[in-house]
Amino acid sequence: MERSELEFATPDTVRLAIRENRWQGVTKRLALGYHQANVTIVPKALAFDFMRFCFNNPKPLPLLDVCEPGNPAPPRAAPNADLRTDVGGYVILRDGKVAERVPSLEKHWRDDHVAFLTGCNLSLDRILLESRIPLPHLVDDQAFPAQFRSSILCRPAGPFQGPLVVSLRPVFEELVIPLVELTSRFPLSHGAPVHIGDPQKIGIEDLQQVHWGRPNEILPGQIPMFWACGITVQAVALASKIPEIIVHAPGHMFVTDLLVRELSVTPTV
Amino acid sequence: MERSELEFATPDTVRLAIRENRWQGVTKRLALGYHQANVTIVPKALAFDFMRFCFNNPKPLPLLDVCEPGNPAPPRAAPNADLRTDVGGYVILRDGKVAERVPSLEKHWRDDHVAFLTGCNLSLDRILLESRIPLPHLVDDQAFPAQFRSSILCRPAGPFQGPLVVSLRPVFEELVIPLVELTSRFPLSHGAPVHIGDPQKIGIEDLQQVHWGRPNEILPGQIPMFWACGITVQAVALASKIPEIIVHAPGHMFVTDLLVRELSVTPTV
Repeated sequence: MERSELEFATPDTVRLAIRENRWQGVTKRLALGYHQANVTIVPKALAFDFMRFCFNNPKPLPLLDVCEPGNPAPPRAAPNADLRTDVGGYVILRDGKVAERVPSLEKHWRDDHVAFLTGCNLSLDRILLESRIPLPHLVDDQAFPAQFRSSILCRPAGPFQGPLVVSLRPVFEELVIPLVELTSRFPLSHGAPVHIGDPQKIGIEDLQQVHWGRPNEILPGQIPMFWACGITVQAVALASKIPEIIVHAPGHMFVTDLLVRELSVTPTV
Repeated sequence: MERSELEFATPDTVRLAIRENRWQGVTKRLALGYHQANVTIVPKALAFDFMRFCFNNPKPLPLLDVCEPGNPAPPRAAPNADLRTDVGGYVILRDGKVAERVPSLEKHWRDDHVAFLTGCNLSLDRILLESRIPLPHLVDDQAFPAQFRSSILCRPAGPFQGPLVVSLRPVFEELVIPLVELTSRFPLSHGAPVHIGDPQKIGIEDLQQVHWGRPNEILPGQIPMFWACGITVQAVALASKIPEIIVHAPGHMFVTDLLVRELSVTPTV
């Protein structure tokens, strides 16, 4: 299946293609204009602490939806979807280690699992394309934003603590201010950047040594801009040695029914 | 102590006056420009459900802060305050009934109590005064917005369910649109109104039969405007027969260190 077939598809068409394994790639540029979400699943005993962790860290973890315990359908973001099958893959982390990578959660979902959806930068792909802002991942079909553990620490909640992960976009100077203005209007998709310029100031020594994603070339005249990133959950799960936490496979987001434009003005969806 | 002494006081000055019983009135027009908050305290076993209830109902319950279990200091909204003593009074509800009204929580606070702060209309008093929008409670020193149980239902979460409570402001016609524009920019203070005009359309038969607050006279040429109200928590506690829930005494809000102007652009504070 070609990406172009799903670029302007509805969210349920994209989710069905993922569920039936007709689409196995990352979700960038799919269902343009709809919120894509990071998925985090924790046992109910950790759910209040994780929800407070999201509340304490709205830049990396802007809450889009919270499921009822045991129910894999997001009540507001996509009530007809099934998080067990409608995401391209999951990573199961146990006690601070990657325990398993699985294509779906059909055999792993339990009645005490609580799923959270948090916002994602890829939700802004349509707005960036329409605004003619040629970020690398939108120009080069193979490119994907590079992601790094930074030296910035999240505000802890219960057992959850660890570093903020940031995503890098190299940007020509004349687009720096417009991009701050534009992204600050979309707090549910990580909002304004957390840092612009020298990577060492946020603890990143080498932009070629990426922790997730792919290295981005910095062209002459380009400035590195860094946004808070949802992969923060994975870094925090590793640092905090959380007994069990399940996250979507990087780049394989959950495509919601929520329109980016519609929700950007509300406080908590 | 005169209200005028506290109108432009800092939040900690107001909280100290309340703690030392030098101020025993309602908090309208105090520490103008700072967020005032509804306080809700539940046992830890209900905390995740209540936090989801706030998330599901951001108009009546926009989250300003969540305390660590057992800790009466709001970590972001006023880390040096003590919710046990810095609020003018509390109502303890048990099993759907008002069990007790107490001046402070010094003898009632437990290690498993979790406190939540949610936004309040009174936070906008300064902006309304500066915008020269003469709402009745700002013109008449004795007036306080009337509040009603409406026929609109909240989105449930766990055991929490019940009616949306609305507050009434009678508004001259030429101010209706400006007030929708202005309040929609402050989602953490209940945002835009939920209804304008005929009270019967939201289940209110008689504007003189108020459920909380004081009746407001509707002058010729005025239109009733209704905003979601934080007293929703009390109505929901009664309707849901929650085993234990503690709320601030109506009108006696907690005065936070959060500036209204500063936080209105962030998604979840």
